[in-house]
Order: sequence, then structure tokens, then C-alpha cells
Amino acid sequence: VHVVGLAPGEIRGWDGEDWGRPVTVDRTIDQVKPEEYDAVVVPGGQINPDFLRVDERAVAFVRRMFEEKKPVAAICHGPWVLIEAGIVEGRRMTCYKSIRTDLANAGAEVVDEPVVVDQGLVTSRNPGDLE
Amino acid sequence: VHVVGLAPGEIRGWDGEDWGRPVTVDRTIDQVKPEEYDAVVVPGGQINPDFLRVDERAVAFVRRMFEEKKPVAAICHGPWVLIEAGIVEGRRMTCYKSIRTDLANAGAEVVDEPVVVDQGLVTSRNPGDLE
Repeated sequence: VHVVGLAPGEIRGWDGEDWGRPVTVDRTIDQVKPEEYDAVVVPGGQINPDFLRVDERAVAFVRRMFEEKKPVAAICHGPWVLIEAGIVEGRRMTCYKSIRTDLANAGAEVVDEPVVVDQGLVTSRNPGDLE
Repeated sequence: VHVVGLAPGEIRGWDGEDWGRPVTVDRTIDQVKPEEYDAVVVPGGQINPDFLRVDERAVAFVRRMFEEKKPVAAICHGPWVLIEAGIVEGRRMTCYKSIRTDLANAGAEVVDEPVVVDQGLVTSRNPGDLE
């Protein structure tokens, strides 16, 4: 399992009040190839996917994993990256409440369930669904 | 001119490195009526519009201003709130680069210009366009 980042260093979450535990980036997006991995999980948050979706390398990685029929998972705002990769049309999915309209406008069938699996796409709504 | 917030208190921006100057909320969304205002500006940022778009009162306020043919402006990620208000279809607009796909999927004609005006909708791309 590798934590992949756009740049080397540490990643921290912000929950609205405090910064979370730092996580070290194991590989940068330049160093990874889709054929070397079995699955990808796109984390959420309001910030992270907003940066990932404008990074061509991150979007191409996710699209390639999907094309290779490997599991592609996303939680909270993570599905924004899947929208950008153009892989959500006609898929049954869920997401954080604020991006339901974006996901539906991209052609997904959006449902309000803790975990939704549709042919390799695994999506979840929010941190409360993590378990 | 009133700074309207979802709750009383102060609002601060985060530019990725530092917190900006605090701005005091003059009115909460419960205290304002569209008929008392001539125009509305929806600020951007990755966080603010993500909260605004899931607040029914904020979305209804913006929609009502648009229906009353008053200027509705948004910059950066602000157009997400206009998407949620259902007022972007067929409109010529711009936005922050990361949400172009969302805006296009909602039916807007998305262009890459510093300021775009279409029948009362005024949109801009990023802080560099502010001037």
C-alpha cells in the first residue's frame, strides 16, 4: 500500500477545528504506474480532490485503473476526481451531500447509502461511513 | 452592503499558508430578505461555497435574486452555489479551473475569460481577476 501525493512530504487533514495526524507520502504521482497497483482509493475532504481533479496525472491514473477493471474507491468529495476522469456516467454511486448535484449532472445514478458498489466503483458518503 | 453569513461571528479566508483578515458577519442568512437587496456576490474558496450550496436558505436567496433579475455575481468556486440554485443552464459563464466540468455538466457555456456577464450573471475565475 502506498500513499501517493502530488508532491513529496506530509499530508494532513483538517476537520474544521484541528489538523489531523500527518501521513507521509510514499510515492509521488510521477513515480507510480497503474499496472503496478491492484486498486486505488481517492480520499475526500473539501480540499484534496479539488487539487487532484486539476492534475492531469492523477486523473489519468484513476481513469486507467478503471479501464483496467481494477477497483476504484472514493469517499466524501473524492468522486469529483472520478467525474473528472469521465468514468461515472450510468454508474450507481454515492458521495458527500454537497456534491450530489455535480455527480448527478455528470450522469451517475446518485443514491443515499453508506457504501455503493457498481462494477468496481466503490463509493461512500462521509467519515461516518468509514467503518 | 452587508456581509451575510450562515452564523454570526467572523469569517476568515485561508490562502493555503495563512489566515486572512477577519471579516465580521453583519447579518445571518435568517435575517435577510432578497427584496431588501439590489445584488449579491458569492465569494469563492474551496470551503465556503461547499457549505453554502447545502444550505437551503442560501441557495433560495441566490435563486430569488436571479428570478428578480438582480445581478448575481460569483468568483472562483462560487458558481457551485449558482449550480445548486439551478440558474446556470444555457448561460455563458466562467469559474475556477477545478469546477469547469461541474459548471459545463450543469448546462452552462463555460469560457476562460477574466469576467463574463450574461443577463445579470457576473462570473470571474480566480483572485487574479479581482481587479
